[in-house]
Amino acid sequence: MTIHNFGPGPAVLPDVALKKTAEAILELDNTGLSLLEISHRSQEFEAIAAEAESLLHELLDVPAGYRTLFLGGGASTQFVVVPYNLLNTKAAYLETGAWAQKAIAEAKHFGEIEVVASSKDKNFTYIPKKYTVPKDADYFHITTNNTIFGSELHTDLDCPIPLVADTSSDILSRPMDVSKYALIYGGAQKNMGPAGVSFVIVREDVLGKVDRRIPTMLDYRTHVEHSSLYNTPPVASIFTVREVLRWVKAEGGVVEMQKRNRAKAKLLYDEVDRNPLFAGTVAKEDRSLMNACFVMSKGNEDKEAAFLEFVSARSIVGLKGHRSVGGFRASMYNALPLESVQELVDCMRLFEEDNK
Amino acid sequence: MTIHNFGPGPAVLPDVALKKTAEAILELDNTGLSLLEISHRSQEFEAIAAEAESLLHELLDVPAGYRTLFLGGGASTQFVVVPYNLLNTKAAYLETGAWAQKAIAEAKHFGEIEVVASSKDKNFTYIPKKYTVPKDADYFHITTNNTIFGSELHTDLDCPIPLVADTSSDILSRPMDVSKYALIYGGAQKNMGPAGVSFVIVREDVLGKVDRRIPTMLDYRTHVEHSSLYNTPPVASIFTVREVLRWVKAEGGVVEMQKRNRAKAKLLYDEVDRNPLFAGTVAKEDRSLMNACFVMSKGNEDKEAAFLEFVSARSIVGLKGHRSVGGFRASMYNALPLESVQELVDCMRLFEEDNK
Repeated sequence: MTIHNFGPGPAVLPDVALKKTAEAILELDNTGLSLLEISHRSQEFEAIAAEAESLLHELLDVPAGYRTLFLGGGASTQFVVVPYNLLNTKAAYLETGAWAQKAIAEAKHFGEIEVVASSKDKNFTYIPKKYTVPKDADYFHITTNNTIFGSELHTDLDCPIPLVADTSSDILSRPMDVSKYALIYGGAQKNMGPAGVSFVIVREDVLGKVDRRIPTMLDYRTHVEHSSLYNTPPVASIFTVREVLRWVKAEGGVVEMQKRNRAKAKLLYDEVDRNPLFAGTVAKEDRSLMNACFVMSKGNEDKEAAFLEFVSARSIVGLKGHRSVGGFRASMYNALPLESVQELVDCMRLFEEDNK
Repeated sequence: MTIHNFGPGPAVLPDVALKKTAEAILELDNTGLSLLEISHRSQEFEAIAAEAESLLHELLDVPAGYRTLFLGGGASTQFVVVPYNLLNTKAAYLETGAWAQKAIAEAKHFGEIEVVASSKDKNFTYIPKKYTVPKDADYFHITTNNTIFGSELHTDLDCPIPLVADTSSDILSRPMDVSKYALIYGGAQKNMGPAGVSFVIVREDVLGKVDRRIPTMLDYRTHVEHSSLYNTPPVASIFTVREVLRWVKAEGGVVEMQKRNRAKAKLLYDEVDRNPLFAGTVAKEDRSLMNACFVMSKGNEDKEAAFLEFVSARSIVGLKGHRSVGGFRASMYNALPLESVQELVDCMRLFEEDNK
């Protein structure tokens, strides 16, 4: 039975990455040991971590001067770690959703925070465009994709100060101009791998500029200096990340991912716009390719539970919208096949027929 | 080919836990989804996490009033998180090894630290016994087992102030009187599971007593309040922890683990003491049941590399001692079978014959 997994994350992963991980847990490469039993100081693991870093740099065309870290703790930890490392007096934040709000709340304890713009006035259904980034801020923080509200910044911003981006839910979904960012971070559990590991891509020259003492484990320099091996890293999660990155490369890289993601999103949003029973919640130009939020259209709100039951009977899972938005959220990460989106669209059409 | 894995961690795990994890990564319980693809908010995961917590409480006979957290980030992160949450003005630490030193170094940035005793004078080859814990300190921090130096505190201390213990490398190796501790923490990657998840068992009434503001993700109360689901936890690692805990229970619990660990340690230490080629490094009464450190005896130091090569040819891995001690370290966690220790002892005897 094929399950169509539209969950927001942890989410659908490439079959080959799952198969390789399961095999390695039984035995890693004829070592006689499980992936879960090898030392993080072993040659085997060092090769895995090095390949994961180099694949990520290759896929995103990361320029010289940047380092990639694979850390435990989740993106929520980075909401604290970013200001700990980069905020001396003042930072600018773009408020585009719940995760941005959490990042802002943590940063406020480290210095002055200027929220340059917010889409809170319309329940985060758009990405603010007109704002000025203060030149005297230490950095400007954005959330490139808003997993909960389904909006996405589709371009890499030009920014006069160091640009920091939470890219948890759209990393690897499209080519990125990494040179425009000082720091990119996220949890792996959408496009990059399983829950349990975070990634940080940091331009080394932005580090070491704050006056405060940073706790060792929260200091990016600790992990840069030790190549993410200062303490025991999440070994198995990093293995799966490597397998996912190998898959992205084998499939044609982020250019191909973007092509597929655009095709999937077009298929779904076209149906949302055509089908009188449904309505999109986000300004069209800011609609996320990763998380499509939609609701029952006006007058049809009472059919929401019935539609969820209808799709559920056709092996579609994870479609329930976040409580902040309601309705539905179709998360369509890299590994979700077009066929799953077609199945959802078919459901929407059949449901329309049934409700005529 | 059986590998005898004496590695200090990540380390040998029960076969059944590896097999169950590999199976769940292919498909979790007829859900049609991989363990790596399920939501951390799913009923499936909530049941896994709840069972892991309840098994741990059952196995360690945790009294009411304590909560267990499963968090990302490793025990090294707890070196910061403990003082962040518990240190108002002053804390006491017992300096018994490299990990204790790291914990002390982090805590010093949060208040006054009184090192009540240290075994640094003899390269941490014993556990200090005579010291006074200051009654005006907020807590007393100990490292119950010193993975690098091979010493262990074999009893639960009586302590007039809240007792905090890093039990990374001996949790579940013996029955513990949890009621004597205010907080017990560690990385799972020795006796409890794979790398990528930490455990914290905390008596709730010690929280909320410091004046400083604690960052959300570093505040134990956040994770207590949200039952470790404030952010996305390391889902697969927690699954493996549950499988390991099920195995411990099925095998007879921590009483049986202690019996086996004592038998394994006796077998090895008896040979270390008998065999003229080898010498133990730690005071006998403080020898760790988990990590047995020994070296070539005086006059035989030149045979170290040859012995490592000798055991390596007999499928023994991970025996090289930490650079701070040299020689050998045989880590004998719960899942290491007695047969592996017998194999090592046989090697020591054969090596003695060959070198007569």
